[in-house]
Amino acid sequence: MEDMISEIRRKKPHIHNITNYVTVNDCANIMLAIGASPIMADDEAEVGEIVSLCDALVINIGTLNRRTVKAMIIAGKTANQKEIPVILDPVGNGASALRTDTTNRLLEEVRFSAIRGNVSEIKMACCGISGAKGVDADEQDIADSADILSVAEMAKRFSGETGAVIAVTGQTDVIADGKTAFAIHNGNAAMSRITGTGCMCSALVGSCCGITRAYLDAAVCAVSMMGLAGEMAFDKASQMQAGTNSMRMYIIDAISNMTDQILARGKKIETL
Amino acid sequence: MEDMISEIRRKKPHIHNITNYVTVNDCANIMLAIGASPIMADDEAEVGEIVSLCDALVINIGTLNRRTVKAMIIAGKTANQKEIPVILDPVGNGASALRTDTTNRLLEEVRFSAIRGNVSEIKMACCGISGAKGVDADEQDIADSADILSVAEMAKRFSGETGAVIAVTGQTDVIADGKTAFAIHNGNAAMSRITGTGCMCSALVGSCCGITRAYLDAAVCAVSMMGLAGEMAFDKASQMQAGTNSMRMYIIDAISNMTDQILARGKKIETL
Amino acid sequence: MEDMISEIRRKKPHIHNITNYVTVNDCANIMLAIGASPIMADDEAEVGEIVSLCDALVINIGTLNRRTVKAMIIAGKTANQKEIPVILDPVGNGASALRTDTTNRLLEEVRFSAIRGNVSEIKMACCGISGAKGVDADEQDIADSADILSVAEMAKRFSGETGAVIAVTGQTDVIADGKTAFAIHNGNAAMSRITGTGCMCSALVGSCCGITRAYLDAAVCAVSMMGLAGEMAFDKASQMQAGTNSMRMYIIDAISNMTDQILARGKKIETL
Repeated sequence: MEDMISEIRRKKPHIHNITNYVTVNDCANIMLAIGASPIMADDEAEVGEIVSLCDALVINIGTLNRRTVKAMIIAGKTANQKEIPVILDPVGNGASALRTDTTNRLLEEVRFSAIRGNVSEIKMACCGISGAKGVDADEQDIADSADILSVAEMAKRFSGETGAVIAVTGQTDVIADGKTAFAIHNGNAAMSRITGTGCMCSALVGSCCGITRAYLDAAVCAVSMMGLAGEMAFDKASQMQAGTNSMRMYIIDAISNMTDQILARGKKIETL
Repeated sequence: MEDMISEIRRKKPHIHNITNYVTVNDCANIMLAIGASPIMADDEAEVGEIVSLCDALVINIGTLNRRTVKAMIIAGKTANQKEIPVILDPVGNGASALRTDTTNRLLEEVRFSAIRGNVSEIKMACCGISGAKGVDADEQDIADSADILSVAEMAKRFSGETGAVIAVTGQTDVIADGKTAFAIHNGNAAMSRITGTGCMCSALVGSCCGITRAYLDAAVCAVSMMGLAGEMAFDKASQMQAGTNSMRMYIIDAISNMTDQILARGKKIETL
Repeated sequence: MEDMISEIRRKKPHIHNITNYVTVNDCANIMLAIGASPIMADDEAEVGEIVSLCDALVINIGTLNRRTVKAMIIAGKTANQKEIPVILDPVGNGASALRTDTTNRLLEEVRFSAIRGNVSEIKMACCGISGAKGVDADEQDIADSADILSVAEMAKRFSGETGAVIAVTGQTDVIADGKTAFAIHNGNAAMSRITGTGCMCSALVGSCCGITRAYLDAAVCAVSMMGLAGEMAFDKASQMQAGTNSMRMYIIDAISNMTDQILARGKKIETL
């Protein structure tokens, strides 16, 4: 889909987010920047109704609690009934039993269209094992993931099990459904020094899934666009002799100015 | 009141906010920028005490839940008893029964000094009908609101019913009490691509209401100042070849540098 | 410790935060900027497990509620058992019984390595009295604190009672353990027009305490670094003809570019 971005700006998909309070402002702003209309709502009394009006649902467990986990399940099941795509960002999966159990429960009770995480989060969800100590990927897991083909195999298998497109983001991003895998070589290492680049990426995946059933295309578009925005933001921050928080802002700026043409020229996608 | 801004900086009103976790940082920063002293507190065990120490209360239902709705009612009633002005921002009113019911309950149980929302939110509160699907105004509602005089009639009637000054913000802002209505022609369309411009506007209304009982003046000052800051921020973002997140920051910057003189020169207020 | 910053970047300490939703994004970003790896988690079902994996815990009561207070106690006690340093930021202590009681209960049930607050918050914690009406220091308390030596005496006494290093931040910052006190003359008055400069300072204290048991050194390093970043950010904002929200961003930028050498040249520390 070569006009994904102009289509988002034309259709203005409504995206329901049940997300964390750390990066929520950046997630809302990046969705508005790409042309979507975000709504954040997490009370169990309204999530079924809200998601029914929306074009996609993004569930992010970054600061989950008992109350919001309930809301995630209700919203996810309602979205499934109404055939609204659901995206999962299992932040910190593996760092606590609560996160692991919640991720597993969500995977059992809700059918996802796309799942995006770092290599530790996805390994834990897929294989029940990872070295994660927090919300950042474990260093050994990162080292292991240098073998892109093995990450692609894991992603394909996990996609086969869940029916979801899997996006494993990191230095090189790997995106796969059950049959096809892509490596995306966009991005900049400094993105790991900014909170929420993963959450924002998931927000973009949600925005793209809000306008098409071609979820693999949607995820590839979102992840490459996020990486390209990171590159552009790093360049601008360097040129301005600025630091990581300016770069955070320039990422959202870059998305607000992103077009299908800029993305077509800048994306570095390899079929695996 | 031609020295509203210097008076806020002199008196440093304390503003209690029960608000959403999406835009709360920008709301706190814009209140500090104009010279107020914000405090965010939403536990029912403390809101009565906190609001009693403050000069105004802003209730924003953007990410309401059962727990915080209780706190809103307690804080609002306490403020009423102590004759502290209360401002309502009914974010997403009409998008779910929870939001509609909460707005209606707040309107029944709390006496507001000012209510600010987009045209869909206000139509729903006033007339029980709107096309809203999320937190953004519905496109049909926006088209209808091109007839400024009919929006002014609605605002006047709603003001008569509630006793509150009504601010309907959008391309043209309409502000009214029961007798008088103004149109404000400040602002920039790109503000709708930034989350929280409405919430920040309500935060400024609260800051102004914290120093004067002339709530109509307060709302006109706050809304025109927000629009003017939006214009200045858009110009600066364009000049810097930046995007929507830079513009978000420049809005708060502009408020931090705003003076009564700058506002007097830049405001575009029409008496209807 | 003259290589504190390079050590943080080398060791990447994991910092668990139970904090408020107003300034949480800036806190996460400033910790990443200095080289730490923050995780925010506040559900009682996971905080014990999360803190056990971490190198320090920062408890900030800025938007406390019944649910999160429980989590603070559990996490604090677990950290104590595992000998993980715990930092307290008693935001708004004195502004409500809930905040005062929670601070006192935390001080009774948890052993802190460092406590950072403004003069009103610390006076209330130490002496049970203050003029605070909100989250900003009371003006009389500020005037009284011009007598740096009396603030230092209070901090030393409070340190003796709690075993924690005490950091009283304001125009001049005072940091003390039971025996030694320092005044830090870095910082800029405009920092008080930005929400979260206190919270971010506590986040840096936590980041430093995550790599050393020399908590007095850690606090002095963190507080002087925050002040220096404020100076650099103010200069840059002035030079860019910007305002307070740009300055907020430049503070985090400055921390992301901070080195031990820059800090050594710029810090203004006086032994009292």
